[in-house]
Amino acid sequence: VRDANGLRERIDAALDRFVAAQQGVLDAIGPELDSVLGALRDLLHNGGKRLRPAFCYWGWRGAGAPDGAEIIVAAAALELLQAGALVHDDYIDESDTRRGRPAAHRRFAALHRAEGWRGDPDTFGAATAIILGDLCLSWCDEMFEQSGLPPAALFRAKPVFQLMRTEVMAGQYLDVLGQHRGGRGLQSALRVVRFKSAKYTIERPLHVGGLLAGADAGCLAAYSGYGLPLGEAFQLRDDILGVYGDPAETGKPAGDDLREGKQTVLVALAYQRTEGPDREALDRGLGDRSLGPDGIDRLRAILTQSGAVAEVERMIETRTEQALAALDGGAIEPEAAGALRGLAVAATTRRG
Amino acid sequence: VRDANGLRERIDAALDRFVAAQQGVLDAIGPELDSVLGALRDLLHNGGKRLRPAFCYWGWRGAGAPDGAEIIVAAAALELLQAGALVHDDYIDESDTRRGRPAAHRRFAALHRAEGWRGDPDTFGAATAIILGDLCLSWCDEMFEQSGLPPAALFRAKPVFQLMRTEVMAGQYLDVLGQHRGGRGLQSALRVVRFKSAKYTIERPLHVGGLLAGADAGCLAAYSGYGLPLGEAFQLRDDILGVYGDPAETGKPAGDDLREGKQTVLVALAYQRTEGPDREALDRGLGDRSLGPDGIDRLRAILTQSGAVAEVERMIETRTEQALAALDGGAIEPEAAGALRGLAVAATTRRG
Repeated sequence: VRDANGLRERIDAALDRFVAAQQGVLDAIGPELDSVLGALRDLLHNGGKRLRPAFCYWGWRGAGAPDGAEIIVAAAALELLQAGALVHDDYIDESDTRRGRPAAHRRFAALHRAEGWRGDPDTFGAATAIILGDLCLSWCDEMFEQSGLPPAALFRAKPVFQLMRTEVMAGQYLDVLGQHRGGRGLQSALRVVRFKSAKYTIERPLHVGGLLAGADAGCLAAYSGYGLPLGEAFQLRDDILGVYGDPAETGKPAGDDLREGKQTVLVALAYQRTEGPDREALDRGLGDRSLGPDGIDRLRAILTQSGAVAEVERMIETRTEQALAALDGGAIEPEAAGALRGLAVAATTRRG
Repeated sequence: VRDANGLRERIDAALDRFVAAQQGVLDAIGPELDSVLGALRDLLHNGGKRLRPAFCYWGWRGAGAPDGAEIIVAAAALELLQAGALVHDDYIDESDTRRGRPAAHRRFAALHRAEGWRGDPDTFGAATAIILGDLCLSWCDEMFEQSGLPPAALFRAKPVFQLMRTEVMAGQYLDVLGQHRGGRGLQSALRVVRFKSAKYTIERPLHVGGLLAGADAGCLAAYSGYGLPLGEAFQLRDDILGVYGDPAETGKPAGDDLREGKQTVLVALAYQRTEGPDREALDRGLGDRSLGPDGIDRLRAILTQSGAVAEVERMIETRTEQALAALDGGAIEPEAAGALRGLAVAATTRRG
């Protein structure tokens, strides 16, 4: 992702400062909490695209507000929401790794084993991951509010900030429900994409930044026109990477989405386009956690041959074009529009 | 708990209004979310003492601010934090019931079974409980901020509101860690009581209410002088109820804390006062989830005979006296001081 104004470094520095301040708070409660904060620090330092902070920052700039230290802190706070969501989602999805390293619940189960503590290591790992995620969800408000922006600006943006959290959690429930209830419909897969990804990753961060800056209705509408299709394209790229991505670049095992049985748009399209033995192979294979390399390859071949992959690539292209067109109406300041153009390309052509 | 000004009903009405508004938000995302909100509604309607809202309300009144609709909403928001904490704690502690009804993760596992969905019912139950708790933790901010109190007042109180959340989550981690790491020290049990209960249940809610009203340092100090010892006494009463309480009044199975192996102050004192076969029986029995009625009775007898129960009763008495004395300095408005006196007695002599 293109990094104008050294944005990435400034966001990371703001996160480091916030975590260091929380370390002081936790130390006063108990030194044992150091390992909880260590897990957060490693997660933040171990990559991540900082997409939500970047969109929030450009949402502010695009509404005509100047660069400054305060908006960096407010934008960086969204990364704590993302960290909390990842920690909880990884436990819910039974993912073993995150960005190539053990997921939080696995990390704390390993600590339990290494220390030879009593009881079940996995129970301890689950408990700690839930608590760490809760802390992150709570801290994202705290960091946002301590950004130094005026209370009136924060209060203008806070309702959308809150709605964003409700939407991502609701989307996560619909995702989990879809995996258990079955029914591989395209519409329900697209709804999960809309709430769990498109709004959460792009549209709402832009709105939060815009509202902090006092954006007018035309600017906010342009952000939706750009953010919703781009967010869908972003998630559709993720669907493809979850099946065909290189583990060295995605940080996740090859074909992980297949093993988890994720109800993606890619899978929904493949279901529409297969029958007979191919369809039975999808039914058997998707969600089979013991699936080996051969099984993964077989499913990949079915998805490709069905034409679903090509269709998803076409959907990504159409949506990216739609998103870029929304930048041209003149409602967004030119420098920000340029940055958003760069982010759109980066988000939809990435390999990890 | 004494209910001046119809406080309980007004708090419940504010919660109902907030939940109804969220229902509108969730309906627009997907009708399936109705079952998630239904679980929250049942949890809120199924009892609970509304202690944190009550302390927040009296913290406001005690600083000299008048009764009003806004403080009721802000105070009631603390009940959503508590709801989220209960839902997550029940899953972490593997508790089957809450207030005499199935805990959230059990409720959703039962829904999964009843609907005959795919995959593991308990995995679905866990996922839904985590998401429901996340929503509650997020909504508590939202309700607080939408109370209608002026932004300046909210911003004065918000840092302590945030600290309260960090403290309760940190206390929960220390509690979980204590159960796994062992080491039944009195000091570590008292530390968990301080952060997970005394500050969270009483001192911080009073501070939040006080800060909303613009309380001076003397008033806030009096709240600490009252809240910390009373909070400890409240939790020590909980320790006794967790072992000897009547399931019809506590809503939890008899001796549940023993089966969970909770590292309470009561247990820590019993360890200091036993040796030989009694101590071995504690070691074997505490945390044994298969413990039957005879095993529970044996452990109860050891705790009583050790003198630990009498010691905890003495600690409750001393702390309650300390708390009441802190109300006498004149820093708290008389009507609020009277209400806090009533709450102190109710919180430490309750049976469920």
